Amino acid sequence: MTHPDIPFTPLVNSLPASTPFVGPETLERMRGSAFDLRLGANESPFGVSPKAAAAMQAETPRIAWYGDPENYDLRKRLSEIHGVAMDEICVGAGIDTMLGVIVRMIVPQRAPVVTSQGAYPTFNYQVAGYSGRLEMVPYVDDHEDPDSLIAAAKAHSAPLMYISNPDNPMGTWHGADKIDEMIKQVPAGTLLVLDEAYIEFAPEGTAPAIDTSNPRVIRMRTFSKAYGMAGARIGYAIGHRDLITGLNKIRNHFEVNRLAQVGALAALDDDAFIASVLDELARGKADIAEMAAAHGMTALPSATNFVAVDVGGPDKAKAILERLGEKGVFIRMPGVAPLNRCIRISVGTAAERSAFRTAFDSVLAELVAA
Amino acid sequence: MTHPDIPFTPLVNSLPASTPFVGPETLERMRGSAFDLRLGANESPFGVSPKAAAAMQAETPRIAWYGDPENYDLRKRLSEIHGVAMDEICVGAGIDTMLGVIVRMIVPQRAPVVTSQGAYPTFNYQVAGYSGRLEMVPYVDDHEDPDSLIAAAKAHSAPLMYISNPDNPMGTWHGADKIDEMIKQVPAGTLLVLDEAYIEFAPEGTAPAIDTSNPRVIRMRTFSKAYGMAGARIGYAIGHRDLITGLNKIRNHFEVNRLAQVGALAALDDDAFIASVLDELARGKADIAEMAAAHGMTALPSATNFVAVDVGGPDKAKAILERLGEKGVFIRMPGVAPLNRCIRISVGTAAERSAFRTAFDSVLAELVAA
Repeated sequence: MTHPDIPFTPLVNSLPASTPFVGPETLERMRGSAFDLRLGANESPFGVSPKAAAAMQAETPRIAWYGDPENYDLRKRLSEIHGVAMDEICVGAGIDTMLGVIVRMIVPQRAPVVTSQGAYPTFNYQVAGYSGRLEMVPYVDDHEDPDSLIAAAKAHSAPLMYISNPDNPMGTWHGADKIDEMIKQVPAGTLLVLDEAYIEFAPEGTAPAIDTSNPRVIRMRTFSKAYGMAGARIGYAIGHRDLITGLNKIRNHFEVNRLAQVGALAALDDDAFIASVLDELARGKADIAEMAAAHGMTALPSATNFVAVDVGGPDKAKAILERLGEKGVFIRMPGVAPLNRCIRISVGTAAERSAFRTAFDSVLAELVAA
Repeated sequence: MTHPDIPFTPLVNSLPASTPFVGPETLERMRGSAFDLRLGANESPFGVSPKAAAAMQAETPRIAWYGDPENYDLRKRLSEIHGVAMDEICVGAGIDTMLGVIVRMIVPQRAPVVTSQGAYPTFNYQVAGYSGRLEMVPYVDDHEDPDSLIAAAKAHSAPLMYISNPDNPMGTWHGADKIDEMIKQVPAGTLLVLDEAYIEFAPEGTAPAIDTSNPRVIRMRTFSKAYGMAGARIGYAIGHRDLITGLNKIRNHFEVNRLAQVGALAALDDDAFIASVLDELARGKADIAEMAAAHGMTALPSATNFVAVDVGGPDKAKAILERLGEKGVFIRMPGVAPLNRCIRISVGTAAERSAFRTAFDSVLAELVAA
């Protein structure tokens, strides 16, 4: 029973004390020791560009200064890279934070918001936290389904809808043509959040051309994945300048860490590092596919830095996850059927993949024996 | 005219495209060159503890990992320092961000929120951004006035009220007895935000004893000021566990930068550094008081890391501010009468104070000659 003197809004009173993800550190505290392998949060095992690390370390003595609230230098470089104007970009403290700002600026109380059943939980957390009403459509063949998302947005007159491409947690993706077709169908009065957190990992032809003249879509990008800066908390939105103005009306302007700003800027100019990450990642995905096949399982094709492996059913997936946890291996699995017949393995370094293979083989042997 | 296809909420449509503070980098871009002296944002000129800097630099290679969403290690240390339970502390990405979360969890649409005319603008920005209606009371003798704040909270049945102690932008403060008396008068159904961003600079006997059994007050602390980590974006709230649970229901759990987490933890264990900061700060305030007196002006007593100097009137304050800006010196001044007869000077290093004195003397000589 909450203390009766506290004037929480009715919404906050109604919300559960839940988090979208239990962090690996929490799990470690629960099990009483650190994980040997941290392959559950799609963090980059290849770390950050040495140029970015050096920039952050060099900036540390100036941490007493607030970061530039306009994120000017970073937006300038991003505008060159993406061929858009600076006022068509907003930099924020990671996509999670920015999803909250987007929901806040678009979703009136109890308005419908469309997403896929099993898609990114933090988007759902933000929608619930601003009193939106989630309307979910199922995945189709382990893909988020643009057609049913659009149909639901129209049916519910939803002001906001969400798709991630490539998708998390399945790693699947649609080509640019399909996404472009989806964008064309977004009705007036609906904003599509196109979450491209994993886009750097996807094949050529996955990202549609950026068209900031279209006010019905906002694109989300991050330095957390390919750039290996999840702990820095920095990402950005690209969209029509009126959308960006909306974000600027309500966002916390002084929210981005100063080291994150310089690190992100330096990271953008280390293409060689990103290329090496992608190379090693391709080897890693092949390793996981080979491991899955050796156990008669299917690794789903992935355009991300993780691989969903279909282990045959939710009970088996859960058992594998738990036994791996006991052995000091942190991975995750999708939360809802039918996606939850899979486990989701973030690609590690070669050494981590080898150690994972040992643990995985051992867990499967135990489960067969049990 | 905003694009008509974008389904902004009525609130966002009604908000101006304004920011609570124009950052110094923006001003530098406007003037075409960097400031020589950055003494306008109450950033610490003494930087960060070497222990904290070393901790952040050492952690940089792990920036690919998200920070612990529970901020466990930091909350544990803070709970020891403050003698409260861990679940009576919430760590967030700076007080500005946390003020937003507090407003969001307490203030229904168009509800009254009480603060002082001329007090912290970012609180007002967050209130407006969540559709609260500001009810302001005047400062009394350059102090925020607990009595009129309480009276206004009662008169308006305000669910939320704000005071900073010590105060920004005037640097004045009340003793713990006065604040304790205020806290006792907070009515049921009102939450008092007691912003103690500058508390480390205040004399003994300024901070009331922390009493987390009282659900009507939430205390805000930061690593941005005394700890010299403004660019890191990390602060915390202390309060009744039900208040902290409310924050945890809606905050972005993955918002704090990983380096900020380790830096803050290390900073807490460098008392010698903080002592040296306070020593030098005392010398700095004496320097500014001496400078003001030499010009027949009054430096207000300050329990912060800045000094408000009464220059005799708003026009003169504005003229000094602008001329200093032209000379490459960044300071700020309060935004409203009667506070705006002052300029606000962040205390610099000895060298910065000396350079400021030169610029200030020169500006005043010019103004006399004009």
